[in-house]
Amino acid sequence: MTEFAGASTPKMRLGTFLGVSPATTASAGQIAVIGLPFDCGTHATRIGSRQGPAAFRAMSSEVRPYYPPLADVDPRTDGKVVDLGDVDVIASNLEPSLAAMEAVIHDVVAADAVPLCVGGDGTVTLPVLRALARRYPELVLVHIDAHTDAYPGEDINTGTTFTRAAEEGLIDTRRSFHIGARGTMPVPGAYDHTRALGFRLISGEEVRQRGAAAIAAEVREVVGTRPVHLSFDMDYFDPSAAPGVATPTWGGPPVAEVFDLLHGLKGLDLVGVDINTLSPPHDVQGMAAMLAGHVAVIALHLIQLGQAEHRLNAGHR
Amino acid sequence: MTEFAGASTPKMRLGTFLGVSPATTASAGQIAVIGLPFDCGTHATRIGSRQGPAAFRAMSSEVRPYYPPLADVDPRTDGKVVDLGDVDVIASNLEPSLAAMEAVIHDVVAADAVPLCVGGDGTVTLPVLRALARRYPELVLVHIDAHTDAYPGEDINTGTTFTRAAEEGLIDTRRSFHIGARGTMPVPGAYDHTRALGFRLISGEEVRQRGAAAIAAEVREVVGTRPVHLSFDMDYFDPSAAPGVATPTWGGPPVAEVFDLLHGLKGLDLVGVDINTLSPPHDVQGMAAMLAGHVAVIALHLIQLGQAEHRLNAGHR
Amino acid sequence: MTEFAGASTPKMRLGTFLGVSPATTASAGQIAVIGLPFDCGTHATRIGSRQGPAAFRAMSSEVRPYYPPLADVDPRTDGKVVDLGDVDVIASNLEPSLAAMEAVIHDVVAADAVPLCVGGDGTVTLPVLRALARRYPELVLVHIDAHTDAYPGEDINTGTTFTRAAEEGLIDTRRSFHIGARGTMPVPGAYDHTRALGFRLISGEEVRQRGAAAIAAEVREVVGTRPVHLSFDMDYFDPSAAPGVATPTWGGPPVAEVFDLLHGLKGLDLVGVDINTLSPPHDVQGMAAMLAGHVAVIALHLIQLGQAEHRLNAGHR
Amino acid sequence: MTEFAGASTPKMRLGTFLGVSPATTASAGQIAVIGLPFDCGTHATRIGSRQGPAAFRAMSSEVRPYYPPLADVDPRTDGKVVDLGDVDVIASNLEPSLAAMEAVIHDVVAADAVPLCVGGDGTVTLPVLRALARRYPELVLVHIDAHTDAYPGEDINTGTTFTRAAEEGLIDTRRSFHIGARGTMPVPGAYDHTRALGFRLISGEEVRQRGAAAIAAEVREVVGTRPVHLSFDMDYFDPSAAPGVATPTWGGPPVAEVFDLLHGLKGLDLVGVDINTLSPPHDVQGMAAMLAGHVAVIALHLIQLGQAEHRLNAGHR
Amino acid sequence: MTEFAGASTPKMRLGTFLGVSPATTASAGQIAVIGLPFDCGTHATRIGSRQGPAAFRAMSSEVRPYYPPLADVDPRTDGKVVDLGDVDVIASNLEPSLAAMEAVIHDVVAADAVPLCVGGDGTVTLPVLRALARRYPELVLVHIDAHTDAYPGEDINTGTTFTRAAEEGLIDTRRSFHIGARGTMPVPGAYDHTRALGFRLISGEEVRQRGAAAIAAEVREVVGTRPVHLSFDMDYFDPSAAPGVATPTWGGPPVAEVFDLLHGLKGLDLVGVDINTLSPPHDVQGMAAMLAGHVAVIALHLIQLGQAEHRLNAGHR
Amino acid sequence: MTEFAGASTPKMRLGTFLGVSPATTASAGQIAVIGLPFDCGTHATRIGSRQGPAAFRAMSSEVRPYYPPLADVDPRTDGKVVDLGDVDVIASNLEPSLAAMEAVIHDVVAADAVPLCVGGDGTVTLPVLRALARRYPELVLVHIDAHTDAYPGEDINTGTTFTRAAEEGLIDTRRSFHIGARGTMPVPGAYDHTRALGFRLISGEEVRQRGAAAIAAEVREVVGTRPVHLSFDMDYFDPSAAPGVATPTWGGPPVAEVFDLLHGLKGLDLVGVDINTLSPPHDVQGMAAMLAGHVAVIALHLIQLGQAEHRLNAGHR
Repeated sequence: MTEFAGASTPKMRLGTFLGVSPATTASAGQIAVIGLPFDCGTHATRIGSRQGPAAFRAMSSEVRPYYPPLADVDPRTDGKVVDLGDVDVIASNLEPSLAAMEAVIHDVVAADAVPLCVGGDGTVTLPVLRALARRYPELVLVHIDAHTDAYPGEDINTGTTFTRAAEEGLIDTRRSFHIGARGTMPVPGAYDHTRALGFRLISGEEVRQRGAAAIAAEVREVVGTRPVHLSFDMDYFDPSAAPGVATPTWGGPPVAEVFDLLHGLKGLDLVGVDINTLSPPHDVQGMAAMLAGHVAVIALHLIQLGQAEHRLNAGHR
Repeated sequence: MTEFAGASTPKMRLGTFLGVSPATTASAGQIAVIGLPFDCGTHATRIGSRQGPAAFRAMSSEVRPYYPPLADVDPRTDGKVVDLGDVDVIASNLEPSLAAMEAVIHDVVAADAVPLCVGGDGTVTLPVLRALARRYPELVLVHIDAHTDAYPGEDINTGTTFTRAAEEGLIDTRRSFHIGARGTMPVPGAYDHTRALGFRLISGEEVRQRGAAAIAAEVREVVGTRPVHLSFDMDYFDPSAAPGVATPTWGGPPVAEVFDLLHGLKGLDLVGVDINTLSPPHDVQGMAAMLAGHVAVIALHLIQLGQAEHRLNAGHR
Repeated sequence: MTEFAGASTPKMRLGTFLGVSPATTASAGQIAVIGLPFDCGTHATRIGSRQGPAAFRAMSSEVRPYYPPLADVDPRTDGKVVDLGDVDVIASNLEPSLAAMEAVIHDVVAADAVPLCVGGDGTVTLPVLRALARRYPELVLVHIDAHTDAYPGEDINTGTTFTRAAEEGLIDTRRSFHIGARGTMPVPGAYDHTRALGFRLISGEEVRQRGAAAIAAEVREVVGTRPVHLSFDMDYFDPSAAPGVATPTWGGPPVAEVFDLLHGLKGLDLVGVDINTLSPPHDVQGMAAMLAGHVAVIALHLIQLGQAEHRLNAGHR
Repeated sequence: MTEFAGASTPKMRLGTFLGVSPATTASAGQIAVIGLPFDCGTHATRIGSRQGPAAFRAMSSEVRPYYPPLADVDPRTDGKVVDLGDVDVIASNLEPSLAAMEAVIHDVVAADAVPLCVGGDGTVTLPVLRALARRYPELVLVHIDAHTDAYPGEDINTGTTFTRAAEEGLIDTRRSFHIGARGTMPVPGAYDHTRALGFRLISGEEVRQRGAAAIAAEVREVVGTRPVHLSFDMDYFDPSAAPGVATPTWGGPPVAEVFDLLHGLKGLDLVGVDINTLSPPHDVQGMAAMLAGHVAVIALHLIQLGQAEHRLNAGHR
Repeated sequence: MTEFAGASTPKMRLGTFLGVSPATTASAGQIAVIGLPFDCGTHATRIGSRQGPAAFRAMSSEVRPYYPPLADVDPRTDGKVVDLGDVDVIASNLEPSLAAMEAVIHDVVAADAVPLCVGGDGTVTLPVLRALARRYPELVLVHIDAHTDAYPGEDINTGTTFTRAAEEGLIDTRRSFHIGARGTMPVPGAYDHTRALGFRLISGEEVRQRGAAAIAAEVREVVGTRPVHLSFDMDYFDPSAAPGVATPTWGGPPVAEVFDLLHGLKGLDLVGVDINTLSPPHDVQGMAAMLAGHVAVIALHLIQLGQAEHRLNAGHR
Repeated sequence: MTEFAGASTPKMRLGTFLGVSPATTASAGQIAVIGLPFDCGTHATRIGSRQGPAAFRAMSSEVRPYYPPLADVDPRTDGKVVDLGDVDVIASNLEPSLAAMEAVIHDVVAADAVPLCVGGDGTVTLPVLRALARRYPELVLVHIDAHTDAYPGEDINTGTTFTRAAEEGLIDTRRSFHIGARGTMPVPGAYDHTRALGFRLISGEEVRQRGAAAIAAEVREVVGTRPVHLSFDMDYFDPSAAPGVATPTWGGPPVAEVFDLLHGLKGLDLVGVDINTLSPPHDVQGMAAMLAGHVAVIALHLIQLGQAEHRLNAGHR
């Protein structure tokens, strides 16, 4: 953790993500860390991702800011990153919870800041997309997950997030990707349904065969300069690395190759990021939470590298 | 676990509670074990009691049927106990889940069997009471819990179960008890609200001072021969004994004194029992689940001792 | 878990493997899940696989039935799979325990059903082979394990299972495979001893170098249409994926490559499967148990795909 | 956690103790929560209390503000409590670390605020006492701990904290108490040495025999209206309740009786509190951290009740 | 841990119990720590006590030698205590394992040293008694356990240890005690069977009612100056204190009262001690192992105090 | 564990590493296992490696002596390996602790034995190098670690070990390697600083791209016949394999490839080895400790293979 100036000469430290300053609003160009502790969209056994944001912040003690593979600089410099805390959701009431999350994220987006959201279960991506879509009509989704979460079904739960997002027209599905689907499935035909909604589906098996670099190149090619939301489900990792998730799915890539894939997104204009499905009560010594922190450090660098590039190329939006 | 006859000479065993036979219906005089894996009424941090019934059955390997303090007999003799499995609830949808639980329990109660329910969070007691009240208009509640769960509030959650039950007239509040309230509280005046609903409130401190025997005697005196539902919240135990609960509340009685209190209910006409708030993801080596199994063995004996007494005294109902 | 029809309209669920129906016998063409909770053949430190079957069933909540890599169908359709519970063994008495296991499996095999056994330690494979050999004189073994368990020694323990099986003539050793041996060893010359018994030994290092596809192709080539028993020891996985085993052995393949190897067995005529050495007290958040469930889902598909092929090709046996 | 006003209508929450506002300074009458994550004064095996403040804040999600046994009010009302974060200490360098802690606490004390410190190991009490002694020359210590930490020895470590404090004249030893010493000991004569320094020593056995009420009455009698620092070592609890401590010491009182003892301190003029020796890596499901949170809620109430009484009786200091 | 002189000036330490010297034989007057890692007499679910001796030694880092409640001296002084390591048993073969244990203990006893044995499951007490009985024909047993382990049955397992010991005439059953039986039971009439063998049975409930001091006084009265073997089963503790045991049995006494009972045995002529049923794989942060270490420190003091008294009173034997 | 001859015919076993004999000195040609339980050089959150040596010895029950990939022989034959126990360090006092460690290791080295040290944190390598450098002026370092630990800074801590070693001229930096640096970093420019000290730095990314065999070949080429100290930091493993380390660093190689790299060092003249940063309180079921044991078995074989080769090639030193 880094430190902020305290009451006395000795520096004080507080338990925000990476020790950044707590704040109540974000301003243009800043990255705003926001916890979304909602998990009652989870129908699977392993509920508990409401504890995700707290574990994520706590285990950020195990990651550091500099990241040579992308940039040997501190992404927090000049107060670029602030921590807004958690949205106050209501466990047993889905609709008002979605509205509360959307409202907070909307304010951040409206201020030209980038939300870096931490769930909560996979339903939290829906209000994030609703808020972003109001600001970015051409929004593209890059969804990295062992499941497409674009399953058939009428209600809102962790399996229908992107079915709803597609129906609501929040994203340009033809340029949006689901990367990494694998494993056993609760229903037949889930992949066909995802494709029928217009999405591009790259299975985990395809990633293994073509390699992370090729997949990332395809994403960059298709997405171009459009504004992108990156939704990262922690169950994309193999459960040996990230046991603390809602639906552990065996057969994931080695951690280093997950990082390769994320590094390959360098240059995208990331206007939003969410990391979801971290379920601390099912975690082991904070492994998944720690790993989520590493993903978040990558995201901080990717966002800032994207800002540097697209501010020059595309002007202010 | 006991055994049932298998395909061959060697006996086979299956993972039901105490190895009793699985069944799809219960008949008169039987005790029906029913899992109620609903937990999205939990607003507190430690959600996860949907895993309660599975852990309860698994850890029943650590309890045995004979229980000298009450009766050195096997309560499962002659198929007296069956396991109906879990009701199929929907995590994110409270009302249909309550209806599904009520329907299953109603069928059991209508068959003159006694439901022994395992939650799930504290909201599951509401559908149990709704089902029992249709059959037993004079129903009395004995609620043993570190919290009264009769707090102010408009919706249905783990803190308002008995506020709703009182408003719906499901129980005779003047003869119903909340035993064991203690600890830190999220709102002021919760105890006054509970009493204003007509309930008798015996705090944990009062139990310590008067002793379990005196409290149990008062309960027997007030309740008399009326039909009783016993609702036992696992957080009545001190967290040192039962860490795996939704809202651990320090300062509970020694385990032996909890058993004393339960033993003291011998003679009541128990027509329903629920054991709730067991949260396996927050448990430690199955301690709370194991302890719930011990409470269930006590309940099996109490129910049968009550049946023996009240069948003679009060005739068949 | 799937569900079976309960007492009322709401569906009920019970804690069998994948929620299949409990049963006391199996009929022709069915797959019978059978727990073999014996572990006193374990001389190593980490005893505890007697808890394997219970953990296996419990953690089957984390796997689903459809499996696109093999078949996007539900292997449980039309009651194809039943759960017979656990054989009632006696911890401290090896011989009667082996006999009890053999008797139960014999009945299943005699009914032309396929046993899907879950241990228990590696000694449980011996009674399975004894039962199968009575029905299938040409039986071939495919043994996937970090150890060959065909060590020198006079008695029956987890290190001599296949020494005994070879001596008893239960299997065609010249067509039988030990795949995956690796790591530190308690005795010298163990691999030579295995080969001297006639077995084909493909070390873990050889799998790494040639790849899972090549190994599987060799197995299919050698085995042909003969009836096969697949014995899968959970310690074939690296301990980072499956910590809960009796003899964790570092340096195993990535999980996805283990699945590749198993997928490559498609087309074999599997007449028996056992998954052993799962030691829940040494597991972490049920990881190894969950992974055993995934292996079992693969096995369900492999067995049925094999049945479809060999029933047409080879007629009923 | 309670909440503070966020960027939008929906309330935001941050991971401070009990959700109070983060701050960089404290003002008169406030209670300032301060983390002291230093643990290299620990010579015992179980080092790790540097993680104490973080775990303490995280697990404060499991305690609530109202506390009927003392006062059914919210001690956080009107911003009475703030969280200053952690002092930035240097693990391997004792002296500068002590100085840094003392400096921060001095500023708080100088502002007429009350420090509520969370360790860190038992050495952190020394800089707290040094800071308090500069402001309160008549300072009295009430030390509740399974060990007196007033052992012979020349250097500064967790066993010599109060030897040093006595030698430096920081406290009035004749009116200061060590309550609760028990268990196995690393050296002979430790209790005699403690008494030789002038301290009053009440062993754990004496507490058991006389009862918490009698002990508390004696403390109130001896201390009178003098300013008091309460130092509470988490190992005073039995390890069954608080496993996550540096030197677990069996035979402690039931949790309810620890609370009785603390409740009995009502009326003392508490000018400082520290809770130490919480060692999260050795804790179990956050039990000890949760319990430390309960002790802190008691402390918040005791401090405010003391302020109410002594502001009237003794005037402003 | 204490230290022994190493290769250089700096002292070296080794992982024996309390850091005592490793040895291969014991001499007159010494206390010999011996591990008995046999657990295949366990029919219950929680096997694993073969790991008991290793955990016991490892966690002895958490206990200290001085013990003011009995004697503020170091029982290791003058090499009074040595650690002989573990007997080399064979998991799956009961009879040779019993013989190996008996042979080692016999040598210790024959040398007039006192064996302090650590199991292993409850069957290990049988070879200890067999070895002691050869030397002490008047041997008396004091067995502290939540179960009498004197159940009906023909073979040797953890439930029949004292049935066998009584039949073999190893102990004077009329002066031997089973203290602490409680909880649920697998068979009816177990207590009657125990008494029918001649034993004195004091239930856990009786200990609660009469108090530890009264029970200890009765034991001292009945036993007198006869040589005594103390067999202590770790499940006498409540599972909240000692979760890591084979058959956790709820409702045990507070830890401090267990110590009271043991302290009350001061003055007995202890010629053997065993501490059994510690099951590390089911333990939590080493709690039960640590507690076993505390019991062993008490035993070291009791043995030496007994030696001091009986050597004067009764002369050498 | 192997065994040594006990008091009686039955063999006894003691908890040394792999059951080798405990000893107080080492003689020429022997390998001396030495624990270095110092960890207060750790500034990161996860302190606790003082428990490393104990966990390492305990979990050596999970590794075996024979190792076919290098040599199918027992490296312990003829008393080649002894266990000296742990050096007695002082947690809070760096300098005397370093001196104590250096003194013990110096005696071992002076006797022409090879120290196999187990930390403790990364600072323990400094006294090992100081002791070795006095005997081997041409000493070369091969450091395998996710961090170079050759960071800028004035004091001695886990990040400056090799900065100090370079400044003190203990090793030939131009022929010394840091292999495996990866991940997030606390400071900028750390890799440049390492290279500026003269070291060869091969990043983890470079290992991935070139392969373990190529890297090992380069090391052998550069090092030649010079005496080598191998320092192996457990965090070189991915945290999915070795969670119990001080600074878990995601993205490490599969375990099998770590072994490949170590196997590739066959032929080097290893005169010292240390394995550090094992932090048991943060470990999971002893995984990292077990893995450290496997590394140590490899080291035993590498040392003896090196001795065989260099004793012939280079004569006795």
